Amino acid sequence: MEEYLAPDFHRLTPNDEISARMSGFQETLKTQGLDAVLIVYPVDLFYYSGTMQVGHLIVPAHGDPLLLIRRNLARAKTESSLTDVRDLSSFRDLPALIRKHLDMEPNRLGLELDVLPVNMFQRYQSLWPDVSFEDVSPLIMAQRAVKSEYEIDRMREAGALARRVYGAVPDLLEAGRSEIEVAGLMTKVAYDGGHQNYLRMRSFDGINYTWHVISGESGVVPSSLDASFAGYGLSPAFPAGASRKIINQGEPILIDFGLCLDGYQVDLTRMFSIGPPPRQALDAYQALCRIESELMDNLVPGGTGEELFNLAVARAEQLGFGHAFLGPAHRKVSFAGHGVGLEINELPVLAPGFTQPIEAGMTVALELKMVFPGMGAVGLENTVRVKNHGLEKLTPANEDFVVV
Amino acid sequence: MEEYLAPDFHRLTPNDEISARMSGFQETLKTQGLDAVLIVYPVDLFYYSGTMQVGHLIVPAHGDPLLLIRRNLARAKTESSLTDVRDLSSFRDLPALIRKHLDMEPNRLGLELDVLPVNMFQRYQSLWPDVSFEDVSPLIMAQRAVKSEYEIDRMREAGALARRVYGAVPDLLEAGRSEIEVAGLMTKVAYDGGHQNYLRMRSFDGINYTWHVISGESGVVPSSLDASFAGYGLSPAFPAGASRKIINQGEPILIDFGLCLDGYQVDLTRMFSIGPPPRQALDAYQALCRIESELMDNLVPGGTGEELFNLAVARAEQLGFGHAFLGPAHRKVSFAGHGVGLEINELPVLAPGFTQPIEAGMTVALELKMVFPGMGAVGLENTVRVKNHGLEKLTPANEDFVVV
Repeated sequence: MEEYLAPDFHRLTPNDEISARMSGFQETLKTQGLDAVLIVYPVDLFYYSGTMQVGHLIVPAHGDPLLLIRRNLARAKTESSLTDVRDLSSFRDLPALIRKHLDMEPNRLGLELDVLPVNMFQRYQSLWPDVSFEDVSPLIMAQRAVKSEYEIDRMREAGALARRVYGAVPDLLEAGRSEIEVAGLMTKVAYDGGHQNYLRMRSFDGINYTWHVISGESGVVPSSLDASFAGYGLSPAFPAGASRKIINQGEPILIDFGLCLDGYQVDLTRMFSIGPPPRQALDAYQALCRIESELMDNLVPGGTGEELFNLAVARAEQLGFGHAFLGPAHRKVSFAGHGVGLEINELPVLAPGFTQPIEAGMTVALELKMVFPGMGAVGLENTVRVKNHGLEKLTPANEDFVVV
Repeated sequence: MEEYLAPDFHRLTPNDEISARMSGFQETLKTQGLDAVLIVYPVDLFYYSGTMQVGHLIVPAHGDPLLLIRRNLARAKTESSLTDVRDLSSFRDLPALIRKHLDMEPNRLGLELDVLPVNMFQRYQSLWPDVSFEDVSPLIMAQRAVKSEYEIDRMREAGALARRVYGAVPDLLEAGRSEIEVAGLMTKVAYDGGHQNYLRMRSFDGINYTWHVISGESGVVPSSLDASFAGYGLSPAFPAGASRKIINQGEPILIDFGLCLDGYQVDLTRMFSIGPPPRQALDAYQALCRIESELMDNLVPGGTGEELFNLAVARAEQLGFGHAFLGPAHRKVSFAGHGVGLEINELPVLAPGFTQPIEAGMTVALELKMVFPGMGAVGLENTVRVKNHGLEKLTPANEDFVVV
């Protein structure tokens, strides 16, 4: 087999990190009565094995995991600290390999049915006609919601890069530049710091729009997602984020630009303008700062996403911004924050219906946005870590409404 | 309902374009005996309706299509030239709406089962317990493979932008810069031209790695995909493309950087070096030029992807580069070109097993790569349009091996 040496600029996930994740997951599988889980989705594969090389990670409820790699085995062996990493030459070998590894014929197998396409699923069904397949994505997302110290370190580094990128913005803003030109200049600074310009989103089509540089009327353009605005985007085929719209003097400029290092993301939003912005934009921003402050006081273990959402909405109304908070009246979005880590839409969600208790170690982007038809969007967003006492802000960039 | 006005910098797909695609698709549905198809995948939705707003496009075999939008209706109505565009307030309303629209209870419905996740599919099954669902993705991909004049125009524009971006490269290359820094500088130039920095790939996880700036040893790093090399990428969580590796004097620098405008992509690869590259790299590049030239002579309607693949391999062997062509001996890839358009992995594929005849109007990226352990990768790639007589090159950037 060919050798693969990881370059010194790559960080490999430590062995104890993988072991802790794996044993936590296996405890859950025992509770659920699952014989084993087949992990194939790249993000989950990376989380549990340390590599994103294409293959199957077999996690039995009892015993050691087995990583079967389709491509590239040498690289997977180097990147993963798992000990049993082998080549999978044919998909059809899976049942025999798994039967041997489990020392039994499985009855209940877990798969990531929230993202696995039907055609792939039917291939698994044909391999195991008598097995009951169950969706383990809720179990995986619940575990991934609570971050380890190692993961928090990665997010801190992404937050430090965010501070650098946002710190460069005042020098990049010039009236007459388009939103996408500013996004390009920011992206350049981010790339220099090693930013992975692909914010992963767990969804049907995997797309995520980065570089939200949203000026004036762009902030009123509705979104196809559960977001209070989209911006125009570059075309109807990329209908969100920075566009060719020219940025004008005095417009509120909202920049929502997640940063990603070593696979881990932070999410943040800051406000700028070229010349004085409308009074209403400054007032709205001040209100968002107060809402955020109150949310942070209440973002404690034991609370729920629903309570926090209701709190944010009530506070916005008290402050006289109920009409604008989370979008215009006829199309308000139904969330005020989301978990973030390897993906941009993790648990917990600050939204109605989310009544699971918040836990220490969760990382939440408090995403507070207002939309004013005729003026634009105003937003404030920070990624924070929930602790037993207090919070840690993972996105320490300057929070002034910066007027260039 | 809120108004949405498309900005003048957005291009809307013309009505006659949508009509032609729709009637072509409906002819196929009749032949296949399908009652209707439900399109939900964003790229296909854009292709058949002109909008990527989230919803269901119902295409009956007979009669008018119906576009049911979950979010945002105003934007979908503006972007799509379809006439029957309505709000879908509840997923559960689908069966009644479709029954009424078709004026019958459907027996056979088409879905995009190559990308639709299992959980979503099960919701459709619960809505229509007696319907037979069939995968229509092969029908869609076959239609999308043949481009209209309108689509070719979009790809020409992407090709013109590619020429500008690649033309800037000699000024951006400096020994001591990292691959990702050069990628950031190129990305800035591309963004200024309106490039959509997300090359869509039809696959399980939707990911695509752009900005392949691959220098020296990076060109030998194996890929997790069917590609002859990956580069290191930024981390094990983003294991392909430009990395923090510093570019050195005399290394071959391969840049494979697709450009995308209005959703349409072109794919191309060019070679550079800072100071003279190894003789072998120049010789390999010359061989690739000859292989490409012969492929272009044979890329005609009626040929097959398999024949062209075999031709490329045979020619590489004759030229003395069989050992390096499409990767080192132990991990050669099995394709030498791919269709490109709204996605980067369309039909036709130049690979064993692809025996469908090539047709006029198809757009193919001839992707010719060699890997030399100890030195790096050498590649040449152009996107071309197949015509009844001759080809049109859609990526007219300078093809010299540029020594800076």
